[in-house]
Amino acid sequence: GEADVAAGEKAYQQVCRNCHGPKAQGMSAYPKLADKEADYLTERLETYRAGERIGPNSPLMIPFAQELSDEDIVNIVGYITTAFK
Amino acid sequence: GEADVAAGEKAYQQVCRNCHGPKAQGMSAYPKLADKEADYLTERLETYRAGERIGPNSPLMIPFAQELSDEDIVNIVGYITTAFK
Repeated sequence: GEADVAAGEKAYQQVCRNCHGPKAQGMSAYPKLADKEADYLTERLETYRAGERIGPNSPLMIPFAQELSDEDIVNIVGYITTAFK
Repeated sequence: GEADVAAGEKAYQQVCRNCHGPKAQGMSAYPKLADKEADYLTERLETYRAGERIGPNSPLMIPFAQELSDEDIVNIVGYITTAFK
């Protein structure tokens, strides 16, 4: 469905920014997101949500991703892929 | 029950260290834990696990705390309160 970018912003700025930065520019071991495609971000969040360990940060990402509904993912990805262009 | 400090170490070093540091010394906005008492740490983790918002980092801590069993809490607190003295 259509992304609610304001809702995505609220979720991103409340949780994700603490590791990925306020502009999704990435910080230390935590990757930049602002340059990633929507499909990539969606697939990664769904993989973490499924509890799949894909890298060293999986133990951190899995609990966060498991909080997200499909709509949350659409909104957060919609925000990340438009807000910082 | 008796803390399994090795299990507590594994859990701490896999997740908690990313914000609280490898020696629970604290980092930027994330508090030092090595100087806290066991009762305080246990009560805080239980409060977060209950989903109670008690501060700006609650949206980060709640998902992590909700992964923890009572035994996990005993083990992690046992590790934090003994490993760095």
